[in-house]
Amino acid sequence: MMKEMLENVRNQSPLIHNITNYVTVNDCANILLACGASPIMADDIDEVEEITSICGGLTINIGTLNQRTIPAMLAAGRKSNELGHPVVLDPVGAGASVLRTSTAMKLLQEIQFAVIRGNVSEIKVLTQGNGTTKGVDADVSDRVTEENLEQAVTFVKAFAQKTGAVIAITGAIDIVADRNTAYCIRNGHADMSKITGTGCQLSAMAAAYVTANPGHTLEATAAAVCTMGLCGEKAKRRMTELDGNSSYRNYIIDAIYNLSPDELERGANYEMR
Amino acid sequence: MMKEMLENVRNQSPLIHNITNYVTVNDCANILLACGASPIMADDIDEVEEITSICGGLTINIGTLNQRTIPAMLAAGRKSNELGHPVVLDPVGAGASVLRTSTAMKLLQEIQFAVIRGNVSEIKVLTQGNGTTKGVDADVSDRVTEENLEQAVTFVKAFAQKTGAVIAITGAIDIVADRNTAYCIRNGHADMSKITGTGCQLSAMAAAYVTANPGHTLEATAAAVCTMGLCGEKAKRRMTELDGNSSYRNYIIDAIYNLSPDELERGANYEMR
Amino acid sequence: MMKEMLENVRNQSPLIHNITNYVTVNDCANILLACGASPIMADDIDEVEEITSICGGLTINIGTLNQRTIPAMLAAGRKSNELGHPVVLDPVGAGASVLRTSTAMKLLQEIQFAVIRGNVSEIKVLTQGNGTTKGVDADVSDRVTEENLEQAVTFVKAFAQKTGAVIAITGAIDIVADRNTAYCIRNGHADMSKITGTGCQLSAMAAAYVTANPGHTLEATAAAVCTMGLCGEKAKRRMTELDGNSSYRNYIIDAIYNLSPDELERGANYEMR
Repeated sequence: MMKEMLENVRNQSPLIHNITNYVTVNDCANILLACGASPIMADDIDEVEEITSICGGLTINIGTLNQRTIPAMLAAGRKSNELGHPVVLDPVGAGASVLRTSTAMKLLQEIQFAVIRGNVSEIKVLTQGNGTTKGVDADVSDRVTEENLEQAVTFVKAFAQKTGAVIAITGAIDIVADRNTAYCIRNGHADMSKITGTGCQLSAMAAAYVTANPGHTLEATAAAVCTMGLCGEKAKRRMTELDGNSSYRNYIIDAIYNLSPDELERGANYEMR
Repeated sequence: MMKEMLENVRNQSPLIHNITNYVTVNDCANILLACGASPIMADDIDEVEEITSICGGLTINIGTLNQRTIPAMLAAGRKSNELGHPVVLDPVGAGASVLRTSTAMKLLQEIQFAVIRGNVSEIKVLTQGNGTTKGVDADVSDRVTEENLEQAVTFVKAFAQKTGAVIAITGAIDIVADRNTAYCIRNGHADMSKITGTGCQLSAMAAAYVTANPGHTLEATAAAVCTMGLCGEKAKRRMTELDGNSSYRNYIIDAIYNLSPDELERGANYEMR
Repeated sequence: MMKEMLENVRNQSPLIHNITNYVTVNDCANILLACGASPIMADDIDEVEEITSICGGLTINIGTLNQRTIPAMLAAGRKSNELGHPVVLDPVGAGASVLRTSTAMKLLQEIQFAVIRGNVSEIKVLTQGNGTTKGVDADVSDRVTEENLEQAVTFVKAFAQKTGAVIAITGAIDIVADRNTAYCIRNGHADMSKITGTGCQLSAMAAAYVTANPGHTLEATAAAVCTMGLCGEKAKRRMTELDGNSSYRNYIIDAIYNLSPDELERGANYEMR
């Protein structure tokens, strides 16, 4: 199943429009190319509707959010909805400021997202419409563990039902769910959190997978999450004692570039609940 | 000939002003340093004229174009023209939106460019003043091949005559031409298109070569294109089976850093038409 | 002494707010993670006060300065001052334009900085309130050498007295001083200037060190400067003949990721004046 999701990205090479932050944008572009998709970045209100129209899918990422790009996010999202293109939301730092929380909430109100991907703290803020987070990483108290997994799955399914989107919470254990079904994914490595933007990269890649697999949003998102985690593991094994987070970043993107559909099928480590 | 072009960059270390997109800007800065030049990035209308005045050349790149920086592009371009500094245009995504096409056309009207570098689809849009492209990559139907090369050369020379600029169309076969003479260059590797921003990087580097070689714009641009392609080949040979597009990006910049003028002279693979 | 400074960063993992340029921002984020801190980038006037409030320290870097972010820099700086958070200024390109010089002077007037880090030309411009620099690199005529070191130390201490900040001038010999005491640091490698943004990265890292070591601003800044220089040396030793500035960038960040406090203590090469 996972296998086909990646094959379709490689075969169709979907063009993905990204309105994203300037911190991790280069890595987002390279990871899209690595998985077989093509990136285009455009955030001016005067062109986002046209740009999104020539693409297959859209990622909206609110890192380094600013007043100039919020209307562009809304316009691009609405246009994508009109065209039936899948839209992925990455609510980076929701809860860290009123601007980010209120923008995320406005986006949720006005745009039908196919996928919402964040860490557990960000997603909790979205479910409540307010709350605080401590920056761009998940609060320790929120983390999904084996002990609270069942509760977390219920929470994620409920938010999927409310939003009509597939919800992906990533962390030590990832949960990808629609209203009925959850993938609990145990790929990845803790050191991935020592690289800036692995979450942003995954959101961009999820847009590619979902775009290339219409009608299979849940499976495609789960496949993207497994891809990122599995390649985090592969890249970790490649590391020498001199390597650190900068090389690890490169190795993960390299691993995605080289990942075969069969490897993904074999290496994806998940259970369904 | 190629050899002297690179030697002059290394010896003069020209300072290059870049008004460019936020996706590939870091790679543009590092490739300028790699070839022996120095980068400065500045895009605010209140400083671009001063900044460009202390530089030797200017690159204008319309990726992630926005309303804030268009007047800055025009002001910097005009100032550079006044000062006799060479200006390079990279019309990223011209044809993908009215904003990009009309901005590129306005830049062409108001600024005398020394070099215009793009893929064949972008350049076709500029010749027509309209048209559509499918994102930031060339359309398959437009591609320069051995079969249509002579026709493509004629097209490029005509656009060079019309604009007074050296035109560089890069792809599987690169064409660099003024009104009279074309270099048809067969350096490079297809996998370079799997890295974001190799085109942007080349445009920035072309500005450095042209700035360090006044009176030799055609040869300097051809040398920059050969440098990029040759280093794409060298970097490709360095790749292990674990490497992908992220390492390839690093290896290309590394190869430029280490390229000797003699290696460029020997490795440059071109014919003149 | 140096040792404890790094240990405190690793143990406390300070969250650092960065208002910075879009050229080197990704490297700034990754170097903060490499040394054990956490980054958050935010530059919109509507959120910077909130964001800086959840952080421990702030870096203001004026590369790619624009009118939109200047009020955000001032607001974030004032808020950090109110909260007693250390603020680091990196006056990138001060002297290269009136916009940069006047903004740097305004920031100096309105915000109490804990640390000001730049190259010698930038710092000279700040002491005078005007003057010119040739881009983002120090002018050759300004450079600190063994011959003019004593004079440079006196100059730096005087500026530290005037501003109440620790001043860090980095170059072949680095000087880190408050009004009374200067560290003259001989770590680093000349090739670090062939990578874009090593200065920006150091400024971000200095914010992390100072934040994790309250009451020890001078020592913490000196430790950050030694860390960068020492890791520049370590990374240089790792380089093969195929490596250039792109790999060097990665290796420096990797080296910081792997640096032990004991290594820093042993490798820091400084004298006090």
